[in-house]
Amino acid sequence: MLYPTPIAKLIESFTKLPGIGIKTATRLAFYTIGMNDEDVNNFAKNLLAAKRELTYCSVCGNLTDDDPCNICTDESRDRSTVLVVEDSKDVSAMEKIQEYHGLYHVLHGLISPMNGIGPDDINLKSLLTRLRDNSDIHEVIIATNATADGEATAMYISRVLKPAGITVTRLARGLAVGSDIEYADEVTLLRAIENRTEL
Amino acid sequence: MLYPTPIAKLIESFTKLPGIGIKTATRLAFYTIGMNDEDVNNFAKNLLAAKRELTYCSVCGNLTDDDPCNICTDESRDRSTVLVVEDSKDVSAMEKIQEYHGLYHVLHGLISPMNGIGPDDINLKSLLTRLRDNSDIHEVIIATNATADGEATAMYISRVLKPAGITVTRLARGLAVGSDIEYADEVTLLRAIENRTEL
Repeated sequence: MLYPTPIAKLIESFTKLPGIGIKTATRLAFYTIGMNDEDVNNFAKNLLAAKRELTYCSVCGNLTDDDPCNICTDESRDRSTVLVVEDSKDVSAMEKIQEYHGLYHVLHGLISPMNGIGPDDINLKSLLTRLRDNSDIHEVIIATNATADGEATAMYISRVLKPAGITVTRLARGLAVGSDIEYADEVTLLRAIENRTEL
Repeated sequence: MLYPTPIAKLIESFTKLPGIGIKTATRLAFYTIGMNDEDVNNFAKNLLAAKRELTYCSVCGNLTDDDPCNICTDESRDRSTVLVVEDSKDVSAMEKIQEYHGLYHVLHGLISPMNGIGPDDINLKSLLTRLRDNSDIHEVIIATNATADGEATAMYISRVLKPAGITVTRLARGLAVGSDIEYADEVTLLRAIENRTEL
């Protein structure tokens, strides 16, 4: 015997999570057994509920428990702007700053030629349909990560949308607030100089 | 809105695990939603099963799904030796080497004067009862960690048991296999010299 079956099974479940190896899984499983009944019951309930109740908004692709999601149905939001992000976590990051009041579109991935992920493998077609069917949308803000895949995706979307007369913008590149010039990488510094603003 | 309620609740459950902050919890929760139904259902089931089915062996204190545990009831094991460990994970580590065939006693903690944990706060009294009621036991091997608390616990147990005529031993201290003398700490080197063995 190594571990009793119930804990061996729980350890196995924990190892299926990203970044959790056998040692961490063992530690978490043993900790769970020492937790109070209510917390463990809630944990199990929340796992099932999240899996069962959450779905992707049929309009914007955002993770939601209502379809369409409460951003798409919110009449007070600016319906002329769509901000395009990689995943639902980016929507939350953007909502936290409480400065953007338009709509979203979640791609669930980025175009990545290196990994064989093309425009058809992400939630992009529905953005084009959305723009075609909805003449209210005048600006698409591309807010993909500042990585190679993020850039490739931004370039692709802008090439597809520009002929349709839609303004395509993307988030500014430059020094992160609080960062040191000394430690900034060269490409960031280059973008910061190129995009310098008047004081 | 930040996150839909079901995912916010799942994130909260994940943050209750040790070493998992809000960022990791968010990552795990989002990952869970993308997992297949079967894995998530099993995860929830395993959580509840581990909590419900596991108990501590009334004889040795080891985590088990049968009471007494299958080590205590295994008639093929050497019933004259008891190896004392801090927790059930140590039992598993010891069982993995398949060299020890005696019984165990799990303390569920260590005596720690610095943290106000005394002999009555760990599963020690049951060891004394076990030794008193069972004249088969001739040797107690103390396998607590090589830390200050582990040493304190070992010293205490040996002081209590020696007058009763029981042989008390503890795991050897010395260089870990594969380690460099150059990087060994002074106390380890000292123990390694003191306990040197003839070739």
